[in-house]
Amino acid sequence: MSQIDINFQDAQKAFLTLKTLDKNKIAGFLEEMAKQIEAIRDDLIPSASRESHLPEGRITGELGRTLGQIRLFAQLVDEGSWVEATIDHPDPDRKPAPKPDIRRMLKALGTVVVFGASNFPLAFSTAGGDTVSALAAGCPVIYKAHPAHPETSRMVAEAIKNAVRISGLPKGTFQHVEGGIDTGQEMVAHPLAKAVAFTGSFRGGKALFDTCNARENPIPVFAEMGSVNPIFVLEGYLSKQIESAAAAYASSLSLGVGQFCTNPGLIFIPKSHEEAFSAAVVDSLKEVAGAPMLHEGICHTYYQALEALSQSKKLTWLLDSEETDVLTGNVALAKVKASDWLSDEAFQEEVFGPFGIIVVYEQEDQLQALVENLKGQLTCTIWAEEEELKNRTALLHLLEEKCGRLLFKGVPTGVEVGHAMQHGGPFPATTDSRSTSVGTYAIKRFARPVAYQDMPESIWPDALKEGNPMGILRKVDGAWVSY
Amino acid sequence: MSQIDINFQDAQKAFLTLKTLDKNKIAGFLEEMAKQIEAIRDDLIPSASRESHLPEGRITGELGRTLGQIRLFAQLVDEGSWVEATIDHPDPDRKPAPKPDIRRMLKALGTVVVFGASNFPLAFSTAGGDTVSALAAGCPVIYKAHPAHPETSRMVAEAIKNAVRISGLPKGTFQHVEGGIDTGQEMVAHPLAKAVAFTGSFRGGKALFDTCNARENPIPVFAEMGSVNPIFVLEGYLSKQIESAAAAYASSLSLGVGQFCTNPGLIFIPKSHEEAFSAAVVDSLKEVAGAPMLHEGICHTYYQALEALSQSKKLTWLLDSEETDVLTGNVALAKVKASDWLSDEAFQEEVFGPFGIIVVYEQEDQLQALVENLKGQLTCTIWAEEEELKNRTALLHLLEEKCGRLLFKGVPTGVEVGHAMQHGGPFPATTDSRSTSVGTYAIKRFARPVAYQDMPESIWPDALKEGNPMGILRKVDGAWVSY
Repeated sequence: MSQIDINFQDAQKAFLTLKTLDKNKIAGFLEEMAKQIEAIRDDLIPSASRESHLPEGRITGELGRTLGQIRLFAQLVDEGSWVEATIDHPDPDRKPAPKPDIRRMLKALGTVVVFGASNFPLAFSTAGGDTVSALAAGCPVIYKAHPAHPETSRMVAEAIKNAVRISGLPKGTFQHVEGGIDTGQEMVAHPLAKAVAFTGSFRGGKALFDTCNARENPIPVFAEMGSVNPIFVLEGYLSKQIESAAAAYASSLSLGVGQFCTNPGLIFIPKSHEEAFSAAVVDSLKEVAGAPMLHEGICHTYYQALEALSQSKKLTWLLDSEETDVLTGNVALAKVKASDWLSDEAFQEEVFGPFGIIVVYEQEDQLQALVENLKGQLTCTIWAEEEELKNRTALLHLLEEKCGRLLFKGVPTGVEVGHAMQHGGPFPATTDSRSTSVGTYAIKRFARPVAYQDMPESIWPDALKEGNPMGILRKVDGAWVSY
Repeated sequence: MSQIDINFQDAQKAFLTLKTLDKNKIAGFLEEMAKQIEAIRDDLIPSASRESHLPEGRITGELGRTLGQIRLFAQLVDEGSWVEATIDHPDPDRKPAPKPDIRRMLKALGTVVVFGASNFPLAFSTAGGDTVSALAAGCPVIYKAHPAHPETSRMVAEAIKNAVRISGLPKGTFQHVEGGIDTGQEMVAHPLAKAVAFTGSFRGGKALFDTCNARENPIPVFAEMGSVNPIFVLEGYLSKQIESAAAAYASSLSLGVGQFCTNPGLIFIPKSHEEAFSAAVVDSLKEVAGAPMLHEGICHTYYQALEALSQSKKLTWLLDSEETDVLTGNVALAKVKASDWLSDEAFQEEVFGPFGIIVVYEQEDQLQALVENLKGQLTCTIWAEEEELKNRTALLHLLEEKCGRLLFKGVPTGVEVGHAMQHGGPFPATTDSRSTSVGTYAIKRFARPVAYQDMPESIWPDALKEGNPMGILRKVDGAWVSY
């Protein structure tokens, strides 16, 4: 029996125990997890900062977000309505056949394999949104540590294990595995794995997706693989605020050395204002000092991608990024005519780092074709005056076809953790556009409905009992009620 | 441009129009569809009966179910809460950054390709649950007619097209395509296809699943591929009602010539009562006359499967089915020791037709291992006295891991159409255990969430407006409210 096999056996044992626990126990465990992680913050912040090269201020913010989302899931579980309890009462007198009693609710899928991301050593890693939403659903998690921040990952894993122990949950509830790509592949191929969550590169996510679909029993893979998050700017809007628009773009593009999956790698600008806008963006970006990227591999890939793009005669470089050392990401900016952008898919491939392309369009009636040719995105943003949108219903409908989140103001970086957030989008942004990896709906990825027909009252789960002892929202005989 | 390409272009045009319609328009169209189909019932019933060889009484029942489910989806759409409208209000004063306004709802996926089933020429075919739930979500449907009932399919398609015309919807809302396997593959490979729904064989469903995962942009496939729907019978229960249990089993097994995806192909019986039970089942089944199957291909496959099983020395045949002609399905029954059943996966492969295997177990502590070795099922059934279940929590938990619907009384055949129904289960029963193909939750397969950030009030969709003009259930700042 391999170590991975032992991990899965332990997780399966834990799963069968987790199924017997009531919601308060799971919610309490999540609260305890937040507490344990908070208790090590003075060691955690310098560690995560050192390993990721992200400044302590940024890591401090990320820790707050991580704790906030753990507590948000604790509340969600404690409230309890997420299980979609649905009851259709029986009718023994119905003709031609009696109507049975059917009660349905969501149940945890089983062991989930989670892969963390290098760009969020806390919020999308060991105790990140994927781990927490899976645990909240009642699934054991086997977490594959990201090799870019091993110490940080171990520290968080210990905190989670402390919470598991203090809460009296089985040891197999959370397990931390270190290893390379082969280990990850062995994990997702294991017969007891029931779902996979991943945040990272297209190549990495697609490889997991292919492995899991080729299994004897295919399992869902929720891979968030990033995108170029285009911003479409209309003329009326731009003419009124060219400076602030340029500053906002430059700031979002270079935030965190451009290492966000929501980094706006493309911006579509009308020709009429392009020169002034470009000049203003360049001015802003010139002020941005190069900064260390997450690791040398990412930095190397960044410059390789720029080098490849520099072969294209269609791009005009407004800011040429120089590779000053093996870790520093320097901003880069290019522009391209809309007709040329359409001719080469390379111009919409994600370049992970502080690089953007300004796409210059002639007239607004070009936008429809540009959006039609856009691949699936996590976000699309439109900057327009309200009255400019009134006759643009078709464009807005097309834009929402291409993304999971559509912004009208602001920038796509900075993903709010809440109930309404959708962080997911059509392929290749993710492998399942019907799911989100941020926000409370993320829990739904790790559960499936089970219907009980004519189940004896004495074994009804609390969520499905008459009288609704949990006080949750339920669909009873077709009506949503909480009594 | 191929004909299929033209179909998808038309569907896409229709999709962009459907997106602009309010819910009443879609609900009205579904009502009209039911009306148009009802109007041709006197022609439809004999046609479906003639093509499927199912008796008119059965087809009459199926028509009622078909109309009922269309109207149920009309109500669901009219009520409107299925879109999961979720609003997180902004907070401009939040530190360090203002909190944006985020509004999320489910939006239709786009064009759905639906494949009908031969065993339900109405309820799982042209205007069946897949077509209707996709249309209800606002998705255009391109329907691939089942070659086993072409006339019936054309008649229903005409009725749907009448409803489309009368309701003023675009022509591309529903399209009917006839062809072979190649046509089906071309359809699901089309770039504009956004999801696939299928009911049929494992081979057929798995082939579609593989094609869609290998696309440049993979799309979800909701394939319901059937199962053997085991019944587990405990000793206390059986000792009290051996005759009625045997009669119920025999009746469910032979219903509709065994041509249901919920046909109970396996029944687990304690050794203590096996002989009496088997004798009673045989007595009941002897009364069942052979009846025509759906088509010669299915009949041929049925006898081939029995022939293959008859090579096994582990099976004892209680009723040997003879191939009397190319269409008649005659019942067959075999038994096997539990330990032998465990040794050969062939004993849990679906045999489509009136064939069952009685698995004889020695003691109840064997059941855990038997269930552990069970593949994913649409349904599992346990027949037990209520007090026999009290110490069987682990067994019940394991059983629910294996299926989408767990029954405590009655038989798995006869799938109730309602809100709480779950018709789906772990692979290989379906390709997505998180979905159902029967009941109102089926609509969720064909929609995905979109979040709007800081969208101007003047373009808020009705579902997301302040004041809740649609009066639907919404999650607002974390609380479920309908005001």
